[in-house]
Amino acid sequence: MRIDIITVLPELLKSPFEASILKRAIEKGLVEVHFHNLRDYTTNNYKTIDDYQFGGGAGMVMMIEPIDKCISKLKAERTYDEVVYMTPDGERLNQQVANSLSLKGNIIILCGHYKGVDQRVRDHFITKEISIGDYVLSGGELGAAVLCDAVIRLIPGVLNDETSALTDSFQDNLLAPPVYTRPADYKGWKVPEILLSGNFPKIEKWREEKAFEHTKNRRPDLLEE
Amino acid sequence: MRIDIITVLPELLKSPFEASILKRAIEKGLVEVHFHNLRDYTTNNYKTIDDYQFGGGAGMVMMIEPIDKCISKLKAERTYDEVVYMTPDGERLNQQVANSLSLKGNIIILCGHYKGVDQRVRDHFITKEISIGDYVLSGGELGAAVLCDAVIRLIPGVLNDETSALTDSFQDNLLAPPVYTRPADYKGWKVPEILLSGNFPKIEKWREEKAFEHTKNRRPDLLEE
Repeated sequence: MRIDIITVLPELLKSPFEASILKRAIEKGLVEVHFHNLRDYTTNNYKTIDDYQFGGGAGMVMMIEPIDKCISKLKAERTYDEVVYMTPDGERLNQQVANSLSLKGNIIILCGHYKGVDQRVRDHFITKEISIGDYVLSGGELGAAVLCDAVIRLIPGVLNDETSALTDSFQDNLLAPPVYTRPADYKGWKVPEILLSGNFPKIEKWREEKAFEHTKNRRPDLLEE
Repeated sequence: MRIDIITVLPELLKSPFEASILKRAIEKGLVEVHFHNLRDYTTNNYKTIDDYQFGGGAGMVMMIEPIDKCISKLKAERTYDEVVYMTPDGERLNQQVANSLSLKGNIIILCGHYKGVDQRVRDHFITKEISIGDYVLSGGELGAAVLCDAVIRLIPGVLNDETSALTDSFQDNLLAPPVYTRPADYKGWKVPEILLSGNFPKIEKWREEKAFEHTKNRRPDLLEE
């Protein structure tokens, strides 16, 4: 898989891709991630990438030309399955969307900033608009990092223990059951006895019940799907 | 506002706080963000912070003791309004949750990893569990960065133009209308004429209509609330 991220703040994205699972996935050659600084695609001396919005109002808008230039250059080099725009009014990212994107070959991710991008970019270049949740961030960069993390960890070989991703929350529309580790007694707070019993069929049943109960309490909407 | 982030991967969090709006908010003294490496609170030579889960199964669980030590040390130094745990089964972050957290004084954010934290941490130390969306990430660090960005940009004085945050998507349960900037004609793709008319009451009306239409098409659930 190859991911090309178009951004005005490549430095903001640095550390999340240099640590933990994303770093290991890149080192193992399971995914390539390239950052493209939008300012390298400007045509004026001031490297301007935004301008006032037509019709007035607070907030700057990202101009179409540098984005067009950058996307067109990438598309001339290879075929892309999706050109994704990170925006709070896009399709909400969930585990199913992440699963489906993890099967793609090449993806471009455009990070918005300020008031967003010129609508013509969305109309003519973007194939998929994704939101990581119902809140506003100062830019699309953190959203892009979240999307990459959610997707890349699903690529076979990225996680050491593949069963680990399959038993995560949401993969079966159930939240995960509670987990415990040593010590069995910490300041009088004890681990449920069943987990110490060694009776694995009973433990499995207990976990299923807890997962169902937890989902029913916190997210009944997941059970209705 | 003061935010203390407890993590096993402080290096992952570095760049998002050294760029853009978060950096400026910190430099202006509007918010303090401190990172605490959980490994500094371990009691064994190997600096172990996780262990196998009781009852068997894939994935490691973060131990209670280092977390207890870190949270207790912080609480001995000052009072905290919330001890937040980032977890996919928590309350979903939205603009209202971000608004309400932006009014707090001191917050601790605990980042989970692997299969999550020992349930006793959640039962005894956590006052608020927050999820940034219905997907699984490799750790709570990106979630913490997203939460900080969503909250910090709402603190008065952080954004240069305060009206800018107020007209964002979700602040009024409507998605934002489309925005356009120069040039008015790009390769034959034109900006809607109304935006060039200079008739501001008409432009305002057009924007309201577009915002409503866009919300109705993409997120009818927001209109029902």
